[in-house]
Amino acid sequence: MSRKTKEEIASIYQAMQDHICQSIEQADGSGKFEEDLWTREEGGGGRTRIFKNGAIIAKGGVAFSAVHGPTPEKILSKLQLSKSDFFATGISIVIHPKSPMVPIIHMNIRYFEMENGEYWFGGGIDLTPHYLNTADASYFHQEVKAVCDRFDAQYYIKFKKWADDYFFIKHRNETRGVGGIFYDRLKADSDEGFEEILNFSLAIGRLFPEVYGYFMTRNSALPYGENELSWQGLRRGRYVEFNLVWDAGTKFGLDTNGRTESILMSMPPEANWEYMHSVKEGSAEDFTTKNLKKEIDWINFSK
Amino acid sequence: MSRKTKEEIASIYQAMQDHICQSIEQADGSGKFEEDLWTREEGGGGRTRIFKNGAIIAKGGVAFSAVHGPTPEKILSKLQLSKSDFFATGISIVIHPKSPMVPIIHMNIRYFEMENGEYWFGGGIDLTPHYLNTADASYFHQEVKAVCDRFDAQYYIKFKKWADDYFFIKHRNETRGVGGIFYDRLKADSDEGFEEILNFSLAIGRLFPEVYGYFMTRNSALPYGENELSWQGLRRGRYVEFNLVWDAGTKFGLDTNGRTESILMSMPPEANWEYMHSVKEGSAEDFTTKNLKKEIDWINFSK
Repeated sequence: MSRKTKEEIASIYQAMQDHICQSIEQADGSGKFEEDLWTREEGGGGRTRIFKNGAIIAKGGVAFSAVHGPTPEKILSKLQLSKSDFFATGISIVIHPKSPMVPIIHMNIRYFEMENGEYWFGGGIDLTPHYLNTADASYFHQEVKAVCDRFDAQYYIKFKKWADDYFFIKHRNETRGVGGIFYDRLKADSDEGFEEILNFSLAIGRLFPEVYGYFMTRNSALPYGENELSWQGLRRGRYVEFNLVWDAGTKFGLDTNGRTESILMSMPPEANWEYMHSVKEGSAEDFTTKNLKKEIDWINFSK
Repeated sequence: MSRKTKEEIASIYQAMQDHICQSIEQADGSGKFEEDLWTREEGGGGRTRIFKNGAIIAKGGVAFSAVHGPTPEKILSKLQLSKSDFFATGISIVIHPKSPMVPIIHMNIRYFEMENGEYWFGGGIDLTPHYLNTADASYFHQEVKAVCDRFDAQYYIKFKKWADDYFFIKHRNETRGVGGIFYDRLKADSDEGFEEILNFSLAIGRLFPEVYGYFMTRNSALPYGENELSWQGLRRGRYVEFNLVWDAGTKFGLDTNGRTESILMSMPPEANWEYMHSVKEGSAEDFTTKNLKKEIDWINFSK
């Protein structure tokens, strides 16, 4: 058994983007992705697919890219490597729904390879409900755990904790949402191990349209009004705060002359801020904010 | 002649906040500031005044604070000082108008004193029009320069350049607006010099309601429609991007456990993002973005 080449991985990821986009269009039932092809001066490029004004999705992006060239100075110094070329391919997704009852979702799978053959996989999937629904959170974490368990009994517990720590809005002392999994620098000693990690990333890729299709269909049927929409605006504001202030990927990209429009694809169509907003004791908003915490066992959550 | 104490400066700044709020309420004609008093566990506190839903102002804040206590570790290491107490007082203002034809404005004056007697002043004022009006930009810079020139013939040229460099959205390769002035670590060798710098900060404080009152009254009479409102949303998005990604004060505050609600008072009530938004060649939006550049001589601007 030999392991896949970086070009094969890019091509598999690109096919996964097709699969995801088709599934999401089907779940939305009305909107269509628009494609934006771009190239990168130093090498490679991407195929960004943008969804606007669907029946269920307000703004979303499913981006594929495969880029290569001289490794940016900041990565070299961080990894303590000397000058060398890199190759990176991946899919990155953020979807902001119209309805405040449908959660925001983020998914990312990526593969990185250096000229000297060093490589690693990274990725994750996490859910940001505007309104916490514990059954939804439990379902989501069960599905994610089931995928993890097929590959390594330790993955879920390790990567769930990593997501809790990563998707944390320090200046608000709250998590971005109910978390999920996050992993980085994942590698193996054998070709079999390599293929296993690649397959793990593909399993997360396939999980994405399944779980999100479920939320799109089911939660978009729930009623809401002005109150819920105004809360959604504030929660989207927190999403912006996390991504612009704390998200390591966003910060790194903006700081190293990355492609701004791709990096900021994660921004909501609209976000709101209000000075000292307070929620009513015992309200759904109160319940949500009180549970934006690390280390919650969502699968077995009980109030 | 002896120089003012830190308590006297705090009290003068607090009176300046009163003056500014009265002037702005008068110019708006409808809304009123709401006051939020807060204290800081380690010492001191603030009086934040928030404006919501006025006739002209959508969301604005005029914050006064006077805080003291042990100097945060990050400041000590930056200044290469050993453990010591600090005192800081200042006024910070950001106003987001309803009309896209009225510019966003920011003003800040602050005084910092260390236990060992070391001190400095900082501050600035800068304008962020949604739509560039060169006559407005010229008027604004003339007024700012006139204040600077009363104190030091070099101030305007030095501090205008500082603002160009500071209020720069690197990942968009554009300035936040038409700039203004920015200064920091300003100090003098004599008591007279100290009083001069204090008076310079007070002159900027008094300038603020004059110039902004002018824009509020004059520009809010200009017509606009859906197109202008949607452009305003996108420009507000850029304001958010600057403040959360690049503003040193915001980053520092959020990173050192500052008072989040005070720091993020600068956020607009609403902001929008659109993937790869493009403007029509030759439009007012195009003219604006093409001139969001450093080193423009706004006083003598010609197309």
